[in-house]
Amino acid sequence: MDKDNLSVVLHSKGDLRLEQLPIPEPGPNEVLLQMHSVGICGSDVHYWKNGRIGDYVLKQPMVLGHEASGRVVKVGSAVTHLKAGDRVAIEPGVPREVDEYFKSGRYNLSPSIFFCATPPDDGNLCRYYKHSADFCYKLPDNVTYEEGALIEPLSVGIHACKRAGVTLGSSVFVCGADLSSDRLAKAKEIGADFLLHVKKEDEPKDIAKKVEGMLGCMPQISIECSGAQSSIQTAIYATRSGGVVILVGLGTEMTTVPLVNAATREVDIKGVCRYRNTWPVAISMLASKKLNVKPLVTHRFPLEQAMQAFETTHQGLGVKVMLKCDKNDQNP
Amino acid sequence: MDKDNLSVVLHSKGDLRLEQLPIPEPGPNEVLLQMHSVGICGSDVHYWKNGRIGDYVLKQPMVLGHEASGRVVKVGSAVTHLKAGDRVAIEPGVPREVDEYFKSGRYNLSPSIFFCATPPDDGNLCRYYKHSADFCYKLPDNVTYEEGALIEPLSVGIHACKRAGVTLGSSVFVCGADLSSDRLAKAKEIGADFLLHVKKEDEPKDIAKKVEGMLGCMPQISIECSGAQSSIQTAIYATRSGGVVILVGLGTEMTTVPLVNAATREVDIKGVCRYRNTWPVAISMLASKKLNVKPLVTHRFPLEQAMQAFETTHQGLGVKVMLKCDKNDQNP
Amino acid sequence: MDKDNLSVVLHSKGDLRLEQLPIPEPGPNEVLLQMHSVGICGSDVHYWKNGRIGDYVLKQPMVLGHEASGRVVKVGSAVTHLKAGDRVAIEPGVPREVDEYFKSGRYNLSPSIFFCATPPDDGNLCRYYKHSADFCYKLPDNVTYEEGALIEPLSVGIHACKRAGVTLGSSVFVCGADLSSDRLAKAKEIGADFLLHVKKEDEPKDIAKKVEGMLGCMPQISIECSGAQSSIQTAIYATRSGGVVILVGLGTEMTTVPLVNAATREVDIKGVCRYRNTWPVAISMLASKKLNVKPLVTHRFPLEQAMQAFETTHQGLGVKVMLKCDKNDQNP
Amino acid sequence: MDKDNLSVVLHSKGDLRLEQLPIPEPGPNEVLLQMHSVGICGSDVHYWKNGRIGDYVLKQPMVLGHEASGRVVKVGSAVTHLKAGDRVAIEPGVPREVDEYFKSGRYNLSPSIFFCATPPDDGNLCRYYKHSADFCYKLPDNVTYEEGALIEPLSVGIHACKRAGVTLGSSVFVCGADLSSDRLAKAKEIGADFLLHVKKEDEPKDIAKKVEGMLGCMPQISIECSGAQSSIQTAIYATRSGGVVILVGLGTEMTTVPLVNAATREVDIKGVCRYRNTWPVAISMLASKKLNVKPLVTHRFPLEQAMQAFETTHQGLGVKVMLKCDKNDQNP
Repeated sequence: MDKDNLSVVLHSKGDLRLEQLPIPEPGPNEVLLQMHSVGICGSDVHYWKNGRIGDYVLKQPMVLGHEASGRVVKVGSAVTHLKAGDRVAIEPGVPREVDEYFKSGRYNLSPSIFFCATPPDDGNLCRYYKHSADFCYKLPDNVTYEEGALIEPLSVGIHACKRAGVTLGSSVFVCGADLSSDRLAKAKEIGADFLLHVKKEDEPKDIAKKVEGMLGCMPQISIECSGAQSSIQTAIYATRSGGVVILVGLGTEMTTVPLVNAATREVDIKGVCRYRNTWPVAISMLASKKLNVKPLVTHRFPLEQAMQAFETTHQGLGVKVMLKCDKNDQNP
Repeated sequence: MDKDNLSVVLHSKGDLRLEQLPIPEPGPNEVLLQMHSVGICGSDVHYWKNGRIGDYVLKQPMVLGHEASGRVVKVGSAVTHLKAGDRVAIEPGVPREVDEYFKSGRYNLSPSIFFCATPPDDGNLCRYYKHSADFCYKLPDNVTYEEGALIEPLSVGIHACKRAGVTLGSSVFVCGADLSSDRLAKAKEIGADFLLHVKKEDEPKDIAKKVEGMLGCMPQISIECSGAQSSIQTAIYATRSGGVVILVGLGTEMTTVPLVNAATREVDIKGVCRYRNTWPVAISMLASKKLNVKPLVTHRFPLEQAMQAFETTHQGLGVKVMLKCDKNDQNP
Repeated sequence: MDKDNLSVVLHSKGDLRLEQLPIPEPGPNEVLLQMHSVGICGSDVHYWKNGRIGDYVLKQPMVLGHEASGRVVKVGSAVTHLKAGDRVAIEPGVPREVDEYFKSGRYNLSPSIFFCATPPDDGNLCRYYKHSADFCYKLPDNVTYEEGALIEPLSVGIHACKRAGVTLGSSVFVCGADLSSDRLAKAKEIGADFLLHVKKEDEPKDIAKKVEGMLGCMPQISIECSGAQSSIQTAIYATRSGGVVILVGLGTEMTTVPLVNAATREVDIKGVCRYRNTWPVAISMLASKKLNVKPLVTHRFPLEQAMQAFETTHQGLGVKVMLKCDKNDQNP
Repeated sequence: MDKDNLSVVLHSKGDLRLEQLPIPEPGPNEVLLQMHSVGICGSDVHYWKNGRIGDYVLKQPMVLGHEASGRVVKVGSAVTHLKAGDRVAIEPGVPREVDEYFKSGRYNLSPSIFFCATPPDDGNLCRYYKHSADFCYKLPDNVTYEEGALIEPLSVGIHACKRAGVTLGSSVFVCGADLSSDRLAKAKEIGADFLLHVKKEDEPKDIAKKVEGMLGCMPQISIECSGAQSSIQTAIYATRSGGVVILVGLGTEMTTVPLVNAATREVDIKGVCRYRNTWPVAISMLASKKLNVKPLVTHRFPLEQAMQAFETTHQGLGVKVMLKCDKNDQNP
């Protein structure tokens, strides 16, 4: 293990730097990881360009990155379930307190949770990173590091599906990729049965009618991924009575929606706060090969070219840009 | 049984009449009821004054009333669980089709459901009324006719509580009676632990803070009963992360709400479409004397004075106005 | 439509006959079906050989068969969602009363339910059969009649999975096909990840250990399909704390099980009473081609050779024996 | 704070001693408590008389007691939500690992959990005891120490009711106090609507019929508290189709039960592993005065008379024997 801990550090709005940081020492319940693959998230770019997301404001330099996998190089004194050499995926949210949320299995709602690359908590776009061992999950041999890194965005989907009650045979309307042809094509590749390309000027009620026509019924579940007001309205109108609208995308603080329509038809409106308890399920899904996330990675850069990678994401090229943090292993 | 079937008939907006109608003949699965106690609902008054509620428009004369209890006087040929003389409470919604909603236990969502005093379906503010025997529930001796009639509004509350997951020990914020001192006092009498009198100009976030202060914690559940936009906003801000806001009151078609606040804290927003499967539970609750709804009846009128009763309700006097339809028994 | 209504009638224990019955006339809410494909179930054979299953005793001649699909040839006066020519799958259980079970979406538990080929209710192993239109489900063009007939046994599985909470990523142990190599091979073909061939003398706790070893963890869910006491014991020991054991197979009236082990680890024990609300889901699953049940049909006989078909099933040959009831269309 | 830490220590089967132990020092996340009221549980007596319960075997001296409340006298360096002087109730189970059970809100199922007075973990029948601050819950002024101590047995009931889905209006059959007239009388005092005194020779099916007769319907939920095989059988037969049997009492390892009856009627069988997330609910229930547990305390002894207190419990006198550990405050 050399002294190189090249890290992607955001110093302030617009000021993103590649710089050396000390290699951290893991605490008793932590592991030190040699990072392997870290995806760039829209939120990473948003912090770079805006210095904040809602109430989370960057006030001091912060390492970016939270879609990550790596290899254990050192384990804390109290760690028993991991050992050096283990390949792991990292759950970036780690509750700091055993509060009512943690005790009831909803640790993602704990207000004091540590979360990678959410100010002021450092992320893992670097060579070496330490993390709570309890939130590192061993990858089976047939799951790659990149699949491991993709568990983070996948977890948002899994949690959304759990909150919605999606199961085999559910009719689901995913909305919010609607305006981009490229993303629609990728959705088709990944498994969507029907595609509907909408235009900005389309009326929510009209789109809802088209969705019903395409599916042959109103969907029981709508998952809204853009946060756009018109798209949320569409999701409500489109959903069958007794169904669920899941809000994944986040828009402006206040939103105008047809609440009476939703309420009188018992269409429930539920948001997702990241995820909880999804890594084991995701690993099981990936290991079974029932799910293929590999086509989502469209670009790869070595960590040294992080600036170029961020530019690529910022320009909206491809789907997922992956940074390769291990100099000796740049494989997927 | 005489020929008198005095009925409260709404002919058109503003044109409410007391008139004689023929006594109906029950079908094979129906019972004929001698009506006893029928409460006046806000919706009855609303139809009288506006001729419509949302998309439900009065197009032909309709008998009002749907909070009702009565005595069986005749049973259809296929009815086995009821007999003449039985005292029953009436569930006013009767599904007409065995559709997916009915089959899955959510018959209240069936679009073609029959519902008393919702155009074009007649209600039961009359002397004699026939109804599906399956939706008439026998009252135990220790439950009065008026308690039986009050099961209808009580059912809205039960269904709201079921949808919210209210259980012993839940912290619940009921909002929307807020502006009326009289109603607050009645809430206290019925069992509320704390009262908060708000003014129109109070800010939703400020009221939410006051609620937390009073309860000593943020409520897990908020039940909004007014439909007012500011009150719905208050309910969202006030509810603990991971909790539920139940929309009982209905306001304007579109509502502006802090959806991002709700979504990121996983505060679910759920409406209620009347109720389902609540009569047996309500009867069990009333029979056990764990619940006392009797103080809610503040006015009583014989059916002959229905116009005066409607005026009383319209003026917002008291809480529940009860019409007594049985000439020979005007007891509670 | 000719007068031929050849039917498979069980007159008494051991006395199975092929005979002509009158073609029935559908009631207002019924449809008359030209039967196409009807699978033979273990229960059909059991009635033939024993004249009873538990408390259900054959007391008069009864048509067998309840895994069925056919074509609508006539519709009752009140039927609106089906028309002559529609291809349908038949849900064999039809509730007769609107009781608490039906109202709450659990009509399968209604004690007075009509059920095909459960004494004294006739089944549909015949040319022409009438059924409640509400319990006939239209098949899409890309779902065959045989797939339609297989929805009935598939429904047992779907209902079991729903009761268990099976979802993508669940680890499930299906036990009870264990002793037969042929059936294990078929399970592999259909999608099982691991197979464990057990012997009669194997100890439940030992088998449970083997299951954990194979899966790499204790399964969250065990689905027991044989009803054998030792297999139920195995299922309990094998299931992870907080998990579920589903009892699909039925054995003797009394069973000796390690209840303390299950109770203290909160391993819930749940049975299935046939199914409810599964046909729409099953059709959606089959239409999506995510599920392939076709390999399960291993034998086909024209209705005229029903005796031979029953003998084949009785001898335990293959998996599913299908009877072809339409003289003019013996396709799958 | 003097040096007196009189403690009730079980050295081996039958060898119970009152002796002085050192006063412990709280760790960073712990609090030191001056114990106030500690109830004696049947399990305490069982360890005393048998030296074991199932697989839990006493191998070294162990302090007894786990139904407890006390006053904070010292807080660890990392504790923020408690301070010296706070009156608290103690949850005796504290998870040691952040495993899948803890993460999903079911920490009671964690195999490595610390649990007071379960070998080898010490309980709190002593003057001074240290405990995880996260599992100490502040008592409101209107909840007494004894009520605080009773939250532990109450929690078993709350968890059982949560697992069963008990809510207002549920019909519940609690069985297993059946053979003792005294306990039945206490049940009546506490709130039972009906009592049924059974004899050892009564048949389960006959008792089930009597329960239905008394209630006027079959109960939706049965809670079995004895662990006796005949009582578990009764609970199954008595429960309505679609209902739940909760196993609270523990009997012999293997139990013979009518599983086919339960399975085909979808009567679920669920055990309880102590409790989880019940203290806040219990405190809320006690503070609201909706629940009165005070009559359950029938005997009180100062800690110095612990031997006499254990004898009293062993003889089955009264309901709950409470030990008073604070020399300066022996109030309830």
